[in-house]
Amino acid sequence: MINYFSSDFTLGILGGGQLGKMMLYETRKYDIKTHILDPSKEAPSSIACNHFQQGDLTDYNTVYKFGKKVDILTFEIETVNLKALLQLEKEGTKVYPSPKTLEKIQNKGKQKLFYKEQGIPTAAFIRFSNKAHLTEGITNNKVKLPFVWKSTQGGYDGNGVSIVRNGSDVAKLPDTECIAEELIDFKNELAVIVVRSPKGTIKTYPVVEMEFHPEANQVEYVICPARIDEQIATKARKIAEKVSKAFEHVGILAVEMFLTKEDAILINEVAPRPHNSGHYSIEASYTNQFEQHIRAVLDLPLGNTNSKVGGVMVNLVGEKGHTGNVLYKNIETIMKMKGVTPHIYGKKQTRPFRKMGHVTIVNEDINEARIIAEKVKKTIKVISE
Amino acid sequence: MINYFSSDFTLGILGGGQLGKMMLYETRKYDIKTHILDPSKEAPSSIACNHFQQGDLTDYNTVYKFGKKVDILTFEIETVNLKALLQLEKEGTKVYPSPKTLEKIQNKGKQKLFYKEQGIPTAAFIRFSNKAHLTEGITNNKVKLPFVWKSTQGGYDGNGVSIVRNGSDVAKLPDTECIAEELIDFKNELAVIVVRSPKGTIKTYPVVEMEFHPEANQVEYVICPARIDEQIATKARKIAEKVSKAFEHVGILAVEMFLTKEDAILINEVAPRPHNSGHYSIEASYTNQFEQHIRAVLDLPLGNTNSKVGGVMVNLVGEKGHTGNVLYKNIETIMKMKGVTPHIYGKKQTRPFRKMGHVTIVNEDINEARIIAEKVKKTIKVISE
Repeated sequence: MINYFSSDFTLGILGGGQLGKMMLYETRKYDIKTHILDPSKEAPSSIACNHFQQGDLTDYNTVYKFGKKVDILTFEIETVNLKALLQLEKEGTKVYPSPKTLEKIQNKGKQKLFYKEQGIPTAAFIRFSNKAHLTEGITNNKVKLPFVWKSTQGGYDGNGVSIVRNGSDVAKLPDTECIAEELIDFKNELAVIVVRSPKGTIKTYPVVEMEFHPEANQVEYVICPARIDEQIATKARKIAEKVSKAFEHVGILAVEMFLTKEDAILINEVAPRPHNSGHYSIEASYTNQFEQHIRAVLDLPLGNTNSKVGGVMVNLVGEKGHTGNVLYKNIETIMKMKGVTPHIYGKKQTRPFRKMGHVTIVNEDINEARIIAEKVKKTIKVISE
Repeated sequence: MINYFSSDFTLGILGGGQLGKMMLYETRKYDIKTHILDPSKEAPSSIACNHFQQGDLTDYNTVYKFGKKVDILTFEIETVNLKALLQLEKEGTKVYPSPKTLEKIQNKGKQKLFYKEQGIPTAAFIRFSNKAHLTEGITNNKVKLPFVWKSTQGGYDGNGVSIVRNGSDVAKLPDTECIAEELIDFKNELAVIVVRSPKGTIKTYPVVEMEFHPEANQVEYVICPARIDEQIATKARKIAEKVSKAFEHVGILAVEMFLTKEDAILINEVAPRPHNSGHYSIEASYTNQFEQHIRAVLDLPLGNTNSKVGGVMVNLVGEKGHTGNVLYKNIETIMKMKGVTPHIYGKKQTRPFRKMGHVTIVNEDINEARIIAEKVKKTIKVISE
């Protein structure tokens, strides 16, 4: 057994954004030594780690050299140099999730093909290597409008995803490898956080329900537990487990799903790391997703995924028309509301729709939490000074 | 309204031990800038603050200069230079708790006299300026054996406190200012965490029950809620409120009490800061004591003091016969147990009875939590490598 606690053991984390920052609460709690690599010297995780290195996450040498100095390597963002991870693993560094898993997820085209191969239900799609091919596909009627366009690489938080309804929407698309996906007429968007250990022990969190902001295509409310039938919840958790096993994933995997009007569950996409849809767990769960991720990648026993209380999460995104030094207007007002905890990520500059923080509302009664969440949303504004 | 979040506002914290470390989880969550002063460069809070300074907390110039660079100053340890705090306050720096409050608490003799003045129930006592006077008091029968001896200054975690039963116990006492206190034949030791804002808004946490290790005189289990009558709990919370008001305290005040066999409540002593008896709140409460302290000293709205679930806290102290690089033996075993979260303070060296961490056990059923806590206590051992 490795001695992780107050020892020289070092965990490396690629990426130092808010997810890294929230992981560091847990490594501090356990006094586990950490190294962080991030391109920005003002990254939210630049403090609270034991060593911070500024560097390019997509550069082979930077990632390779960083990885050689740590005992176990994980990441909080998918866009990292895969070849460096493969080489590190070959040379004996433990990398979790494994580069082979990441390879299957990093490119959304490959991810979708994997679901098809594995018999995992997902929306119908076609992959195109560039915009010319996509346009050809539309002209040939292989792709019917409306459809969901997704860039195969580098998309996150609604970037790299568009609903294409007409010719002018097509014209606006960038020229990249992409997939055209059937637009699902869903009842609900759901997500299940799964955790899996290196030995294959697996646990799922309760199903959460997501409500999206119609314009920014960012999650507006995450509600746990989802207000759905228990049978459907059980089915969703089983499918999420299947997905995690199929990927041989280690750590936290966020599995986003559509619940169709016919009560079918289709996998939308996955994130191989702690995820926005699991932030509620900090206040609501027995073991939050960040601690759970650390437990999994270190091959420590997995914690309890049950909730103590109901939780609703509201994202704090920059207001339209505001760019500059951030001000959280009315934060004192929401701090008076029952069960409300704001999380400020530490980005000094706001801009429209930038993810600046989140607020968790916990309550024994999930419906009361949802009502308070709406008040929170209407009250706090992320503006510039 | 001051903009505390992701701004240049700076909170100074005197002391960088485990209490400071746990406060820093909260300042990170809110992205509040912090400066820490501690004599040890390896202090648990040396990372996760924005600026760490090594220096003597009892030195006037060190504390004064440190305080001049921050906007609001607080502390996590009582043994700090009081004159520097008084001067800083005079020159406009906000110091919470105020130096006037600290002055009344820092010296246990003054603290006891204050209870007497304010009509707050406490065990009978006599103050002695040195050991010769104490011995004279015993000889003259002013003090009867057995009694509780307390050093008036610098005591913590059972240091500076002894039960004196006979002449050889007297012989072992150091020569310092002290109090001789009536030995109370109590049913229970209780504590109430109180939080008070600069404007005087006050809230109390549920009463906790404490079980002490008979040899080390350190708390072994803290149980929340205490398994006592609701009437007694209400009375304890009211007395704790009265104590906080009397001291005009701002921030977290931990009020330790005896419940006598006749169901009277006597104040034992107070700590003007987050306290061991409130650690359970990290996992069990809607707002934990560290966040609550930050909210109070920054004059932000106070959070909910209620519990989501029951909680039991077990201290992790160094095993007898072990001095050196620490190893948390069987930590993986306790991490498998229901509702268990270990906290490792980050001290690299263990020694007998040194406080190295704590473990929280949460459960909807407090009796189940107590059973698991005993298993935790029997399983994990803080030893040297």
